[in-house]
Amino acid sequence: MTGPDPLPGPHEGAWAAFDALVAERLPQWAEELIAYLAIPSEGGDAASLADAAAWTAARLARAGAAVEVIALDGVPPLVVGELGEGPRTITAVQHYDVQPAEPFELWTTPPYAPHVRDGRVWARGATDNKGEFLPRLWALEAYRDAIGPLPCRVRFLVEGQEETGSGGLDDLLDQAPRLREADAALIEGGGLDLNGRPGVVGGGKGIVVFELFAKTMAHDAHSSLSVLLHNAGHRLIAALATFWDAEGRPAIAGLDAGRRPPTPAQLDVIAAQDQQDLADIRADWAVERFIGGLDGVAAMEALTFQTTLNLQGLWAGHTEPTPKTVTPAEAHARLDVRIVPDQRPDEVLAAVRRHLDAHGFADVDIRKREGEPAWWTPPDHVVVTTAAAVSTEVAGQETTLGVSMAGTVPMAQVCARHRVPCTTLGAGRADCRAHAPDENIRLDDLAAAAKMMGRFVAAFARLPEVPRVP
Amino acid sequence: MTGPDPLPGPHEGAWAAFDALVAERLPQWAEELIAYLAIPSEGGDAASLADAAAWTAARLARAGAAVEVIALDGVPPLVVGELGEGPRTITAVQHYDVQPAEPFELWTTPPYAPHVRDGRVWARGATDNKGEFLPRLWALEAYRDAIGPLPCRVRFLVEGQEETGSGGLDDLLDQAPRLREADAALIEGGGLDLNGRPGVVGGGKGIVVFELFAKTMAHDAHSSLSVLLHNAGHRLIAALATFWDAEGRPAIAGLDAGRRPPTPAQLDVIAAQDQQDLADIRADWAVERFIGGLDGVAAMEALTFQTTLNLQGLWAGHTEPTPKTVTPAEAHARLDVRIVPDQRPDEVLAAVRRHLDAHGFADVDIRKREGEPAWWTPPDHVVVTTAAAVSTEVAGQETTLGVSMAGTVPMAQVCARHRVPCTTLGAGRADCRAHAPDENIRLDDLAAAAKMMGRFVAAFARLPEVPRVP
Repeated sequence: MTGPDPLPGPHEGAWAAFDALVAERLPQWAEELIAYLAIPSEGGDAASLADAAAWTAARLARAGAAVEVIALDGVPPLVVGELGEGPRTITAVQHYDVQPAEPFELWTTPPYAPHVRDGRVWARGATDNKGEFLPRLWALEAYRDAIGPLPCRVRFLVEGQEETGSGGLDDLLDQAPRLREADAALIEGGGLDLNGRPGVVGGGKGIVVFELFAKTMAHDAHSSLSVLLHNAGHRLIAALATFWDAEGRPAIAGLDAGRRPPTPAQLDVIAAQDQQDLADIRADWAVERFIGGLDGVAAMEALTFQTTLNLQGLWAGHTEPTPKTVTPAEAHARLDVRIVPDQRPDEVLAAVRRHLDAHGFADVDIRKREGEPAWWTPPDHVVVTTAAAVSTEVAGQETTLGVSMAGTVPMAQVCARHRVPCTTLGAGRADCRAHAPDENIRLDDLAAAAKMMGRFVAAFARLPEVPRVP
Repeated sequence: MTGPDPLPGPHEGAWAAFDALVAERLPQWAEELIAYLAIPSEGGDAASLADAAAWTAARLARAGAAVEVIALDGVPPLVVGELGEGPRTITAVQHYDVQPAEPFELWTTPPYAPHVRDGRVWARGATDNKGEFLPRLWALEAYRDAIGPLPCRVRFLVEGQEETGSGGLDDLLDQAPRLREADAALIEGGGLDLNGRPGVVGGGKGIVVFELFAKTMAHDAHSSLSVLLHNAGHRLIAALATFWDAEGRPAIAGLDAGRRPPTPAQLDVIAAQDQQDLADIRADWAVERFIGGLDGVAAMEALTFQTTLNLQGLWAGHTEPTPKTVTPAEAHARLDVRIVPDQRPDEVLAAVRRHLDAHGFADVDIRKREGEPAWWTPPDHVVVTTAAAVSTEVAGQETTLGVSMAGTVPMAQVCARHRVPCTTLGAGRADCRAHAPDENIRLDDLAAAAKMMGRFVAAFARLPEVPRVP
C-alpha cells in the first residue's frame, strides 16, 4: 500500500507561533482542566461518569468536532469526536473515568478539589487520563489558529470504563465498525522520566483477571468440627500451591500458549535500555534478589516478554483483627495474568482449568473477571519512530524506545481488527502518581504534551507510508 | 484425703418448697435478666464492660455475697463474690462479656433490646453467659429462703474477657491466689439437647490461636513487576500447603506432643454416645464424607481426642470486589489448634516453628494470639456424676455423659494449679444460638438451671469425698 502524496509542511515560523499560542493559552487551559477534574468520575459512580461523558462531548463539540455518543446498557457511554479532514485518520484512545481516590487520608488536598500549587495541578485524573486527553485537543485548536487547517482527521475515542478493564469497549465499537478504521492510533498518553527524558512504546500488555473459588460445605462451621469437615481454605491453598515452582515462577503448562517470540528488533530495543530501572526496583522494594535470580538484560527481557501469574488477592474465613474459631466453607483468590501478543485470554483460562483438573482440583471454580489481548506495534515502525522524534524535539533530550508498557491499555479492541499501528505520545511525568494519592501534572508538561501533539499530527500527515502491523 | 462428715440433707418437703419459690420468682428473675442483657458488653467496648462488671458486683452484693473486684491495666475486671459457709468451696466460673452481635440484620429483634417472646428471652448473652450465671445465683437465694443456710461456700468468678480468650485471667487470679483454692468448680453452664435431655462433661478443650505472616518486600508493587518481585501470597501459600496432607489432616510433626492417651473410662463414655450427632453434622453441612473417611466411634473419638489444626482466616493483597493489579508485600493467615490434656500451648507453637524451619520457611513469622491448656475431669469423677444425677432428676431424662466440650473454657487457669475437678451444670438448650443471631433462653430452662444448682450444692456438700483430678 502506498501512502498519500506528502502534504506541504507548516510554513516557516509556524512552530514558533504555535508554541507562543500554547504558552498564552496555558493558564486558561489549566482552569479548564480543573473544571474537568472536579467531576469524581470513578468507576461505579454512574452519575459522575454521566457528568464526565457529557462534559467531554460538550468540550469536543466546542472545538468544532463532529460528536457522537454511543450508549449501551450497563456500560458508560463512549464519546466520539472527530476533527479535521485529510486522507489519513489517527485515533486517540482516551478515557474520562478515573481510578478510585481512596485512601483519602493520604491526599495532601482533596482529590476532587483540583487546584494549581507549585506549578502543578493536583487531583485524581490530573495525568491519568484527563490531563493527557485535553492537551491533545488543545493542540489541535492551537494548530488551526496558529498554522492552518488540520492535515489529517483526528478521532477521539473517549471511554468511561478504562480503569475497570474496558470490558464493554468491543461491544461499543461494534455499534459503529467504522470507528476501528484508522491509519494509526495514539495510546492514552506518554511518559517522561524524572529528568524529563521521553519514553515511547508501541503498545501495552494484555491481561486476564480471574477468581478461584473453593467451597467444601454448605456454610461455615465452628472450628471444633474441623477434625471432620473439610476447610475450604486448606483446599484452595493446596490448589494454589501447584501454580508456582519453589522459586515463584509460574508452573501452569500452556499458560503462555500463543506467545509470539521476540523479534531481533524488539530484543535490540530492550538491550539498549538503561538498566538503572532494575537497580531502582531493588532499592524501592528493598529486595536483594529477583525471582529465579533474574538480572541484567534477562530481567529486562522478562519484564517485557514473559507471561506473568500473579496472586492479587486472597481471602477466606474470618479476616477481622479479633480471632474467631470458624472453619470456612468458602475461600477465594483473585489472580492476574499479563499476556503478550498473540496470546488469547480464553486460552489462558483454559490452561488454568486443565491444570486444576490435572492436579485433582476439578472442584475449584474459575470465574473470569477481565480479558484483554496485548497489542504491540514494532518499535521500528514509523508511527513509533515519529512519536519518538517529535518527543525528542520538544523535550530536547533523546527519547528512550521500549516495546510495551508494563500496564494494560485497550488498544487490541481498537486496533487489532485492521492491524492499526499505535504509539504512546505525551508528557506524563514519572512522579505524577497516577493511581495513587496526590496525583498531579506539571503545567510545563501540559504544554509539552500539546507541543508534541501538534508536531506529531503534522509529521504523521506527511509520512510517505504508514504500514499496517505485520 | 478424707471428706468432711456428711451434713444433714434438706428436710422433707424442702425441694417442693424450693421449686415453688423458683416458680414464684421466675417472672421477676426474667425482668432482672433483661436489665443485665441490655448492657452491650462486647469485647472491645470498655465502657459497657465496666457497666456490666459494676452490675455484676452490685447484684452479688445484693445477694449478701462478699464482693471483691480485681483490676489490672488492660484487662476487664474480675468480679468475685462469695456466699455461704462450710468446709467445702465450689467455684462457679462465669463471664459478663458477650460475643459481638454482628451481623445485626440477621436478628429478628435488636440484640440489646431484650424481651420475652414465645416463652423465651431474646438477646445477645441470653444463654452465654448472663442467662447461665444468674440462675446459679438465684438458686442460692431460693435455697436460703426455702431450705436454710447454704451447706458450703460458693465462689463466683465472673470475668469480662472470656469471649476473647481469657488472656488476662491467670494474671488476675495471681493477684489473689486463694481464689484458685476450691474443692470443685462449675464450668460456665451446661446443656440440654432439643428433646430436653441433659448432657454433662468434665471440661473443655484448650486452644492455641496464632497468625502466620509472610513479607517479601518493602511494600506492594504493581503486578507488572511480578515477574521479578516475590509475592508474599505465593510464599504463604507454599508454607501453608505443607501444614495438611492431601486429605486435610494435620501434617506438623509434634503438633500433639504431650497429649495424654484416652483412658478406658473416657473411651467407654464416647462409645456409649448417640452417633446421631454425626448424621446431624453431615446433614447440616451437606457433606457426604468426613476428613480421612472418619465415621462411627472413630469419628466421635476424633472429635474429642484429636488435636486439630484449622485455618480460621486468610488474607493478602486486594480483597475488595473490584480487581486491582497489585503484588502483595504481606500475607496473613490465622489458625487455631484445639488441644487436649496435657498439651502446652507454647509446645504447640514450637512445633509449628520447627515445621516451618524444616520446610525452608524460616522467613515466615508466627505471632501468638491466644493460648489456653485443656482441663478435663474424668467422666467417672463424683463431681461429674453428681452433676449428671441432679440434671437427670430435674430434667426427668437420663443424662448423657461426655468427656469434653468441643469449645474452650478457662478452666485450666482456675483449676489446674490445685487439680480441682470441674463439671458442666445447667440447661442451655441446643437451639439457644449462642454466638449467633437470635440468641435466646427459655424461661423454663432458667427455672430448670436454678433447680439443678440448688440440688447440686446440697449433694456436693454431702459427698463423702471429693478427690483431686489425678
